[in-house]
Amino acid sequence: MKVSILGHGVVGKGVWDMLQGNPNFEVVNVLVKKGEKTADFMTESFDDIWHDDSELVVECMGGVVPAYEFASKCIEAGKSFITSNKALVATHGIDLLNLAVKNNKGFLFSAACGGAIPILQNLHLARKSDSIIWAGGILNGTTNFILDSMDSRAIGFDEALSEAKALGYAEFDPTADISGMDTMRKIMLISMVAYDVLPNSDYNVEGIQTVSAFDFEVAKKMGCTIRLVGRCGLSDSGRLYAYVQPMLCSRSDFYAGVCSNINMAQYEGKNSGVMSFMGQGAGRYPTASNILRDMTSMYEGQSHMLKSKCLFGFANNSSKECEGVYYVRLKSDLIPVLESHCGVDKVLCEKDGKKCVITKPVTVKAMHDIAAELRRKDADVFFAQVKG
Amino acid sequence: MKVSILGHGVVGKGVWDMLQGNPNFEVVNVLVKKGEKTADFMTESFDDIWHDDSELVVECMGGVVPAYEFASKCIEAGKSFITSNKALVATHGIDLLNLAVKNNKGFLFSAACGGAIPILQNLHLARKSDSIIWAGGILNGTTNFILDSMDSRAIGFDEALSEAKALGYAEFDPTADISGMDTMRKIMLISMVAYDVLPNSDYNVEGIQTVSAFDFEVAKKMGCTIRLVGRCGLSDSGRLYAYVQPMLCSRSDFYAGVCSNINMAQYEGKNSGVMSFMGQGAGRYPTASNILRDMTSMYEGQSHMLKSKCLFGFANNSSKECEGVYYVRLKSDLIPVLESHCGVDKVLCEKDGKKCVITKPVTVKAMHDIAAELRRKDADVFFAQVKG
Repeated sequence: MKVSILGHGVVGKGVWDMLQGNPNFEVVNVLVKKGEKTADFMTESFDDIWHDDSELVVECMGGVVPAYEFASKCIEAGKSFITSNKALVATHGIDLLNLAVKNNKGFLFSAACGGAIPILQNLHLARKSDSIIWAGGILNGTTNFILDSMDSRAIGFDEALSEAKALGYAEFDPTADISGMDTMRKIMLISMVAYDVLPNSDYNVEGIQTVSAFDFEVAKKMGCTIRLVGRCGLSDSGRLYAYVQPMLCSRSDFYAGVCSNINMAQYEGKNSGVMSFMGQGAGRYPTASNILRDMTSMYEGQSHMLKSKCLFGFANNSSKECEGVYYVRLKSDLIPVLESHCGVDKVLCEKDGKKCVITKPVTVKAMHDIAAELRRKDADVFFAQVKG
Repeated sequence: MKVSILGHGVVGKGVWDMLQGNPNFEVVNVLVKKGEKTADFMTESFDDIWHDDSELVVECMGGVVPAYEFASKCIEAGKSFITSNKALVATHGIDLLNLAVKNNKGFLFSAACGGAIPILQNLHLARKSDSIIWAGGILNGTTNFILDSMDSRAIGFDEALSEAKALGYAEFDPTADISGMDTMRKIMLISMVAYDVLPNSDYNVEGIQTVSAFDFEVAKKMGCTIRLVGRCGLSDSGRLYAYVQPMLCSRSDFYAGVCSNINMAQYEGKNSGVMSFMGQGAGRYPTASNILRDMTSMYEGQSHMLKSKCLFGFANNSSKECEGVYYVRLKSDLIPVLESHCGVDKVLCEKDGKKCVITKPVTVKAMHDIAAELRRKDADVFFAQVKG
């Protein structure tokens, strides 16, 4: 099968390396950045790939522009398309699916969620013979590295972030990671595969920007640590929920064992029970290995992992499946505001004008709304659901 | 697709339940034990299934006799065959594969390894685009339940085994589980899928029959716990190794987080890195969910997960990949015998005429040979590789 590659960076170069000597694939063209063409197989012009005789294009550029334009043009030109670009799929995945179906071409994106972890393919297979009650997990290596460093070495957020950058685990602009949005995009992809719905409104996203060394001190005293967790699922009434937020989990919980930049993706099947998949969530060869898996699947005839009825939808995070109690750290004089909204079950400690409390049960939507209101009062709030 | 089921016990009944209302499959006959026919769809005679118009037979009886005869007859009668029977596949998997290929019928057995965990399907997919360096993990829920109980509640082996029986986690005759042989059979299946070799000689199997509360006391002082681990892989020279043995692992290691009767299957891909899959390793619906996955794969055209060149082979557990240091508990006066064979690096403690030591590096084969020699001297030995 003739293949061209868009991008020759961390992942694109990994795919190129892995294809050397592969008898099933022949690389036609590789798109590189302006001024970076150093070999015959490279081109700086997308048009060369648009018009070449590749049957499959693999995109590893990242970003929505110009990736979406390139993807559309490739599919319309009769090429199948594989991408590791979660922003592209979370934004235009449904359009690209419809375009691919219309043109009778393939569209796969396993590496866009979980790096090397084959969570999307497994969800795709599992739902054919089981019902997926919920899916999600620890899906961002950058934030997990930061949280694990803060926990294991009692350092502050800024120091942990600097280390993550120095080690290549965080990008120069880490906003998408630490805000939780990267995790949310992966939840969107998981939701597409598990439920045929891309939740593009009313989801709740809380990142780790406000976590502090003090929160880890308190967590440690409780025998807990903190992880950033995304989840989507169906409520009893069949409505989708989808959110990302920090979670306080016991040291003996699986989540606490997910260290450094490792990811753990999970789902609960009605029959299978909870299935957990751990592995490298990013990096050149791990991510490229998942692209190669998609390429092999496509070579053998699989063309989609989405159903053609996949639609945009909104999340409803007010159902009882979204209820839980929260650890909240807040200025002492704002605790009454929190109390009036959701009730406070227990005060854990008070120090330097801040209180750490455990709330009464409250839904994800309510908790995120309360935090937003407190922040409008300029409060420094950190909250994390207490894992049951 | 018309399907008949051999067996109506824990797993067979689960498959039957899950097929109710499934539009893709129609159950023709279910084989039950003599005197247990209570419904029209049941039969007590295999001949009824042999001669019915099912295209696919699902076997959930267990045991090699008469399962092998039934499997052969079904395939020769033009039926595809799916089984959850690891003893059958570990003994006759290659014959059944060849018979299925010759008759152009399917043969799948995902549920025979790992219960609900889709380790065999994932290995089958992964190896198409990656090299599997090793594979294995914690693959027996009965022994994991016993070890976890001994660890968390400081009880003895006999008490933990009785509890496991009372809770239905151990069979009346638990020999296959506690001897490590059940895990070894799963390693054989993993090896077939990952390496096209069924290792049927020279493998090493050590179970947990000799583990004591005292070993857990010592492990606890070291910040460790004990797990039963199976592994196969390829040495640098391309030779297969395959073994099962207890492992001493740090409390912060993933393995320590695999609690109760949970299983964790793993592989390391050259490109993907280490992938770990956790879930229910047994039980009615978890195991049946994996059978349903195989049925769905077969319905969609997948017929095998083995290559037709799959062969019997022997294990070589003397390579450097099989080297490690061991925790050994032994009568003090036999320590010189151990020392003469592999060297002792460190004495951990001495109590009631027993010593616990850490050996110098030694291969799996050498360690198992030494233990066999010590047992010929009637020694009560427990050993566990120290996880690196």
